[in-house]
Amino acid sequence: MQFKLTKELLDEIRDAISTSSVSQIERLLKDVHPADIADILDQVSLEEAKFIYDTLDEERASETLMELEDEVRNRFIKSLSNKEIAEQVEQLDSDDAADLIGELSVEDQEEVIQQITDKEVVEEVIDLLNYDEDTAGGLMQKEYFQAKADAKVSETVVELRKQAEEIKSVYSIYVVDDDDKLVGVLPLKQLVFTSPNSLVSEKMIDSNIKYAKVSTPNVEVADMMEKYDLVALPVVDLSGKLVGRITIDDVVDIIKEEADRDYQLASGISENVEPTSSIFKQTRSRLPWLVIGMLGGILGAQVISQYEGEIALNPALAYFIPLITAMGGNVGVQSSAIVVQGLAKNTIKIEGFLPKIAKETAVGLINGLICSILVFGISYLISEDQKLGLTVSLALLTVVLMSGIMGTLTPLMLNKFKIDPALATGPFITTVNDVVGLFIYFVIGILIY
Amino acid sequence: MQFKLTKELLDEIRDAISTSSVSQIERLLKDVHPADIADILDQVSLEEAKFIYDTLDEERASETLMELEDEVRNRFIKSLSNKEIAEQVEQLDSDDAADLIGELSVEDQEEVIQQITDKEVVEEVIDLLNYDEDTAGGLMQKEYFQAKADAKVSETVVELRKQAEEIKSVYSIYVVDDDDKLVGVLPLKQLVFTSPNSLVSEKMIDSNIKYAKVSTPNVEVADMMEKYDLVALPVVDLSGKLVGRITIDDVVDIIKEEADRDYQLASGISENVEPTSSIFKQTRSRLPWLVIGMLGGILGAQVISQYEGEIALNPALAYFIPLITAMGGNVGVQSSAIVVQGLAKNTIKIEGFLPKIAKETAVGLINGLICSILVFGISYLISEDQKLGLTVSLALLTVVLMSGIMGTLTPLMLNKFKIDPALATGPFITTVNDVVGLFIYFVIGILIY
Repeated sequence: MQFKLTKELLDEIRDAISTSSVSQIERLLKDVHPADIADILDQVSLEEAKFIYDTLDEERASETLMELEDEVRNRFIKSLSNKEIAEQVEQLDSDDAADLIGELSVEDQEEVIQQITDKEVVEEVIDLLNYDEDTAGGLMQKEYFQAKADAKVSETVVELRKQAEEIKSVYSIYVVDDDDKLVGVLPLKQLVFTSPNSLVSEKMIDSNIKYAKVSTPNVEVADMMEKYDLVALPVVDLSGKLVGRITIDDVVDIIKEEADRDYQLASGISENVEPTSSIFKQTRSRLPWLVIGMLGGILGAQVISQYEGEIALNPALAYFIPLITAMGGNVGVQSSAIVVQGLAKNTIKIEGFLPKIAKETAVGLINGLICSILVFGISYLISEDQKLGLTVSLALLTVVLMSGIMGTLTPLMLNKFKIDPALATGPFITTVNDVVGLFIYFVIGILIY
Repeated sequence: MQFKLTKELLDEIRDAISTSSVSQIERLLKDVHPADIADILDQVSLEEAKFIYDTLDEERASETLMELEDEVRNRFIKSLSNKEIAEQVEQLDSDDAADLIGELSVEDQEEVIQQITDKEVVEEVIDLLNYDEDTAGGLMQKEYFQAKADAKVSETVVELRKQAEEIKSVYSIYVVDDDDKLVGVLPLKQLVFTSPNSLVSEKMIDSNIKYAKVSTPNVEVADMMEKYDLVALPVVDLSGKLVGRITIDDVVDIIKEEADRDYQLASGISENVEPTSSIFKQTRSRLPWLVIGMLGGILGAQVISQYEGEIALNPALAYFIPLITAMGGNVGVQSSAIVVQGLAKNTIKIEGFLPKIAKETAVGLINGLICSILVFGISYLISEDQKLGLTVSLALLTVVLMSGIMGTLTPLMLNKFKIDPALATGPFITTVNDVVGLFIYFVIGILIY
């Protein structure tokens, strides 16, 4: 019963397109959710997508459009006339409408807005376009239920019934005073189960209401809704006037993007890319960290070149260069990931850096000792050169300890200075640890030989 | 107005605890949300936490308990008597109650369940404990609104009013037939705005209802609720009978955990750890990948040792070992991260491996060429040995290409064989690329010199 996108279905759809059979497409997509239709459009060519899209009724077409991947949608919109875009906009919730228009050039924006016939939609969209897209203002929609605090429940039901068609999902009614300032929240179930003669102000929750200001960063909005398990959050302007509502579905996307972004930064990818992103975009997002890694490698070469004499005398010293750099990198990535995730999840204790460094040192000491003993045994078997084994295992222990401390301290420091700590993960920490690790290795080598 | 946990507040609370001033604590925590109280308890010692906890009324105490970090909660529960736990359980939603009891030993579970006075709670908890915690059954709660399809809207309102107190959040009413099978969904707003005399079956949505089976894996539940923007999802048993409901707040946690887990695997951390996790747990979660990395390093040493003669003749060859291994690692991590995130987000195209490899090859060619030209220039400046520059840049280009293809193919292959593709990211791909990269480097070196 649940929809699953298969290669067979795709083939059937492609067949229907090649014979221009609209009725066949309609049959195949009957009862298919717009999010699933969007998945189909993501898979096919632009021309095929346009063909499928044209078979949809207006409401499903606009919902499908909003579910497309950003890059596919942008390409798709370019193939639509401004009149077609305007028709879509009228179908959408105000936040989606503003997002869609916000992606157009300024001239196209003006043209599309002129083509919209519903004056209320125009007003809402223009209002929403004013806000920075990374704030609560940029995230909110104009569709919400509002009731007066001094009204009766029965009057409120009549009042709300007028707006009911427009608003798809209702969770709570936001209660305002005569100046439209937010003063309380009335759960929808109260409307159903409360005596019609009671006043809204008697039944509403008015202490400790959670809300966002239009300027609240969207990451904070996401944290708040996640923490307090909210499905919708009212948004107020500077004067406390209710101006919008944010729903959980938009916030789920932000929560995921945030987590994905940390992962991407840790993997040395500087902007959001998908497997479907263009070759140019993939190259651009990956090259910066590769160049930094390369410069680190050249710096490492400089460090090693200082010990040319030792290597010529003792080529075996070179054997363990990759082991030292790899372990420094691995430990650094591990400890920075733990700190960055802890910061993102707010599970880091409010205390100085010292207890965290002490803990990381303890972990590094245990892991370092275990690995050092192993490597001493194995290297002894390989080269029978006890000095080499001693050099490698001592260097390894030092590098594991040092890399762990670096990996813990760097994101904490960045965070203190309000820089994104995730920048310290991945290629950056690996590169720094490579260079410092090599230095430690050769210094210990000279001391022992 | 919004709560912010500061060092000052923590100090005030600690002062109040040290003077055993219950009223002072109550004043400080008045109107503070349980999720915020949990944050405070996460920061203080177990004894301090217990003192604060005892000042809370039953409902807030139980909610705070569920908001604690897993490890803190486990420690905390150990300090409670089974009678105290039973009291908490009666306050909680059934899913939280089952989770809490599920964390206890079997003997404690029995004792706690015997102490629960409300027979309905006992029944619900015992039922929920039967399900695997990673399935919809383990995620669902027993608190939901249910209506008969052939009832009138007015009768339904009366019926639901009885259950209204128990159920905190209501979004939809699930409609069942005489066998309690799920046949439709009635949005709550229909109850408010519909004529009382209409039948539930006339007003409900009955086509394409989204639901989960008790055995549906929780990751699929999360995908479904995210994709279709659902705030609640009904759960049915094998016969289609409605047995529970999953709410979005529980699913948000799963969505985050999934994304965090991929990031952790990519960082070489094998189980979920927090900065607050014990030293033992942190060591255990990090050691496996470090040992694998170390074995890779020793394999790398073996590869290099085959070229001892070349290094003795030409120590400069050793200089660029870290550059080659670092770049292989970085590229491999980048491309595997893109594939793994694409698989997690379902944005990977259904097509053979070939187009993906072709794209990755194109990206690798561009990035590889840019880096190779840069490194050729710089290495020329450093050593004035043209052969060395040529060796390094040719090897670099080959390694970047090869690592990209490995990083793309490995997670795709794992996924095909139903193994978690995230295992292929991080230390694994880095280690393999290190060894293969070194081999390529020295083979090219021998060919050129």
